[in-house]
Amino acid sequence: PGVVDAVPVSKPFKLVGREFHPEPTVVRVGDVDIGAGAFTVMAGPCSVESEAQLMETAEAVLAAGARMLRGGAFKPRTSPYSFRGLGEEGLKLLARARERYGLPVVTEVMNIEDVGLVSEYADMLQIGARNMQNYGLLEMAGRTGRPVLLKRGLSSTIEEWLLAAEYILSQGNNDVVLCERGIRTYETYTRFTLDISAVPLARELSHLPVVVDPSQATGRWSLVAPMAAAALAAEADGLIVEVHPHPEHALSDGAQSLTPKNFAAMMARLRTLAEPLGRRI
Amino acid sequence: PGVVDAVPVSKPFKLVGREFHPEPTVVRVGDVDIGAGAFTVMAGPCSVESEAQLMETAEAVLAAGARMLRGGAFKPRTSPYSFRGLGEEGLKLLARARERYGLPVVTEVMNIEDVGLVSEYADMLQIGARNMQNYGLLEMAGRTGRPVLLKRGLSSTIEEWLLAAEYILSQGNNDVVLCERGIRTYETYTRFTLDISAVPLARELSHLPVVVDPSQATGRWSLVAPMAAAALAAEADGLIVEVHPHPEHALSDGAQSLTPKNFAAMMARLRTLAEPLGRRI
Amino acid sequence: PGVVDAVPVSKPFKLVGREFHPEPTVVRVGDVDIGAGAFTVMAGPCSVESEAQLMETAEAVLAAGARMLRGGAFKPRTSPYSFRGLGEEGLKLLARARERYGLPVVTEVMNIEDVGLVSEYADMLQIGARNMQNYGLLEMAGRTGRPVLLKRGLSSTIEEWLLAAEYILSQGNNDVVLCERGIRTYETYTRFTLDISAVPLARELSHLPVVVDPSQATGRWSLVAPMAAAALAAEADGLIVEVHPHPEHALSDGAQSLTPKNFAAMMARLRTLAEPLGRRI
Amino acid sequence: PGVVDAVPVSKPFKLVGREFHPEPTVVRVGDVDIGAGAFTVMAGPCSVESEAQLMETAEAVLAAGARMLRGGAFKPRTSPYSFRGLGEEGLKLLARARERYGLPVVTEVMNIEDVGLVSEYADMLQIGARNMQNYGLLEMAGRTGRPVLLKRGLSSTIEEWLLAAEYILSQGNNDVVLCERGIRTYETYTRFTLDISAVPLARELSHLPVVVDPSQATGRWSLVAPMAAAALAAEADGLIVEVHPHPEHALSDGAQSLTPKNFAAMMARLRTLAEPLGRRI
Repeated sequence: PGVVDAVPVSKPFKLVGREFHPEPTVVRVGDVDIGAGAFTVMAGPCSVESEAQLMETAEAVLAAGARMLRGGAFKPRTSPYSFRGLGEEGLKLLARARERYGLPVVTEVMNIEDVGLVSEYADMLQIGARNMQNYGLLEMAGRTGRPVLLKRGLSSTIEEWLLAAEYILSQGNNDVVLCERGIRTYETYTRFTLDISAVPLARELSHLPVVVDPSQATGRWSLVAPMAAAALAAEADGLIVEVHPHPEHALSDGAQSLTPKNFAAMMARLRTLAEPLGRRI
Repeated sequence: PGVVDAVPVSKPFKLVGREFHPEPTVVRVGDVDIGAGAFTVMAGPCSVESEAQLMETAEAVLAAGARMLRGGAFKPRTSPYSFRGLGEEGLKLLARARERYGLPVVTEVMNIEDVGLVSEYADMLQIGARNMQNYGLLEMAGRTGRPVLLKRGLSSTIEEWLLAAEYILSQGNNDVVLCERGIRTYETYTRFTLDISAVPLARELSHLPVVVDPSQATGRWSLVAPMAAAALAAEADGLIVEVHPHPEHALSDGAQSLTPKNFAAMMARLRTLAEPLGRRI
Repeated sequence: PGVVDAVPVSKPFKLVGREFHPEPTVVRVGDVDIGAGAFTVMAGPCSVESEAQLMETAEAVLAAGARMLRGGAFKPRTSPYSFRGLGEEGLKLLARARERYGLPVVTEVMNIEDVGLVSEYADMLQIGARNMQNYGLLEMAGRTGRPVLLKRGLSSTIEEWLLAAEYILSQGNNDVVLCERGIRTYETYTRFTLDISAVPLARELSHLPVVVDPSQATGRWSLVAPMAAAALAAEADGLIVEVHPHPEHALSDGAQSLTPKNFAAMMARLRTLAEPLGRRI
Repeated sequence: PGVVDAVPVSKPFKLVGREFHPEPTVVRVGDVDIGAGAFTVMAGPCSVESEAQLMETAEAVLAAGARMLRGGAFKPRTSPYSFRGLGEEGLKLLARARERYGLPVVTEVMNIEDVGLVSEYADMLQIGARNMQNYGLLEMAGRTGRPVLLKRGLSSTIEEWLLAAEYILSQGNNDVVLCERGIRTYETYTRFTLDISAVPLARELSHLPVVVDPSQATGRWSLVAPMAAAALAAEADGLIVEVHPHPEHALSDGAQSLTPKNFAAMMARLRTLAEPLGRRI
């Protein structure tokens, strides 16, 4: 319509493409919708550390308006000597938090042989950035029928990310939510560079919902709220955010975790923005 | 306040730092303020091509709410055989547009020996990404006393960008506006990767205003409006945007230029967002 | 000794570090040594496609001086619709080629549950770039006791690469060979950017042998021979190279595969270089 | 000849292209040839600091086999508060060293208005990485007729680098030597990532000689010798190397400077490699 076609994009994907499925997909997790105009906030600690820590966090994020609980039980760590999560004990705590607070749970699964176990406890399976091209894991997650949160690989192109989703959809599972979580660049003041432009672009190319992880991306709690607002303004379908009652004692990622108080302040600001945009939180 | 200190940042800069100058700087260009709660939109063609093109664009962007006119007379081009701008003739057309529409003009200066000439016509000197570490040019721009728009180098760190501004301030010129315009990454679906997180981070570290160029960054007109909204939500002080009455005939950067109609639609959406944020456009 | 200490390197790894094990490790695969002054060349097709293709290639690379046979039976592919390898049938062909030509076999294993199967047929397990941080796979490979070729992730730091090796060594398996295969950058004329400096640096930090994959890295057959020579000159312990009798008909990676004739020419040139360096091929 | 065409390369350059000028260009600087089978080593301090420092270095590098003297009089520095070189006094010292030791001098020119001054003293003008797209400077250097050493920009593509050379050639000056000096990546153990594959690729695409700067690229003296050998093996036409008699007291870049003793050891090793390759040093 009177405009130049932008940089042409080859589209090697099929099932994830807008051409194949023109209507935006809405992914339902428990009683929560991702897509369809909602701005869905998932929040919780980086790692599940103890019952007290998890329950305190869940109560706080629910009160502030989060609709889902996040928390890692199996943690991919660069060093084999770092804290690697509580494993099944962590999954049980997440399930207990869901019972108590009614928040559906999203948690990472790292290995094919854990897919069954994690699916018993979790409402949504997270596939992390380092596993975005672990094709066996993608296909296994596809076969469970559970909703999947698929993080963009830390140096994956948008095309590779959509093709990773294609692996899941090709197994008959359409309930995939894409998650932009920052890409690796030369910049060192931030942990990664959050590629907000990936949000409208992925939504242009695909029918799948797209959420943003401003905590992992920036590595700095002071940047989480502004980047969350940017994600909403750029029409993301939601957020996944790290919250910890005592970031200074967190076993992982304290520097990027919000306190419950800062999380509540962020949610208030997001609500102010959501209304004129016709979005609900 | 109960939070972990984020990734520590060494701060080798002085005059540009918040420590040195805790109050945010407001840069005045003609009768326009950049900073101080305004969200200042500069718009116009990538290159000045003709009087008709420039006047049509200026009239349209003024009507839609732009406060300044942008347009290139000296164009840095990767190839010596590309269109390199109208030179002084382009500057004269910009000055004529200012007279007619009352919009202060920002335009790029590429060479030290052109600083005097460009300063005769322009209200604000733009230093482009490829010249961000052209130290002689930075110092000369500093000595003119003209306000300067300093684009981030296409693979510059935030630290290098602030130190480039330090070169200008060290000559006694505090009227510097930082401009994030996308950084070079491996992604090919966009021209560059717009680093929105640089906005709140630069504003945390420095007192200088920060604006965003969503046109150069994305290279795709369809991404300009969502990224402009993201910039506003992340508390940028304004935008610089490419608008062309006929992008399909533009001599440069047609794929990333908005039509006047699309520009007006973007401005309307930005106004909706600005109000609840307490910002004025 | 009269020199400045270079950029300080924090060393979060243990078992892979020079401090822990000052002598260079020699990894024995069948009757072939990697390390100890040898320059070990592994060659073969990207994918095993047929018995004829594999045998023709094996015969040619053996004649030209390769000491090990490479070939993919399980292929990680960006798209689920690309050719993904012959699977176990490919493994059987590799084993048959080993019998016929006496070349130990290295081939990729992508999934934890395939580790047992691949170990039945292969002399050395390859862990590909996309799986470098698939920690379950690393540990399982560590527990087999089979030698492992660990490719650097396509955007992994040297530190992350060494820590991935640490996962394998921590299971009691010291027979790990590191493989630099190019990192992802903004450059588009090459597929990846081969980081030759990673070779002397990894050998300075670690006792493990380091080999180079010039085929994957460059994506262009014309660059394979010069980069192989560069690897030898930079003191790599060997190469892994793609050779195909008919690159124009290859099911994967034809553009980067050498013909047998070009491979033989490369080997002749490498021998010329190896002698004055006191290396044997 | 029975091989697949590699990744297609668009070739927007003209005068620098092999198609335009099939024979390799030999650039003569004083009585030294760059190209034509020579492996030309330029060496000297990062910055000229004093007569004693420069003369001691020049004597040592000449004795070890260097054919040209490098040394910075005008230094581009990230911070305005760093040591920025001795300016014209540095140029005079370089000229004095040339008289005493007979080594042609290469030194950086940063600003258009210094081109005349630097040309009075230097045999070859260096255009640094940060100025690779300073088009006015490129054209001015082109008009002097002096040989030019053109460093690749720190995040420039090979295409952009060749087009920058095109700016110089388009002014009638064919005496351009390309210099690969490392590109910016996410890796932090090295200062930049030396892209050795750029050497054979630039020589395939262009008739201009290509040299390598292993000091700037790696930022670590221990990597300079292996990367110099890699450059020779990959058919580079020479090197530019930083040598300082007392790196621990250098005013800039001590960590990457070789001592005269280490430089001599490197040259001995390069000679061993050069002979079987039919190259002369």
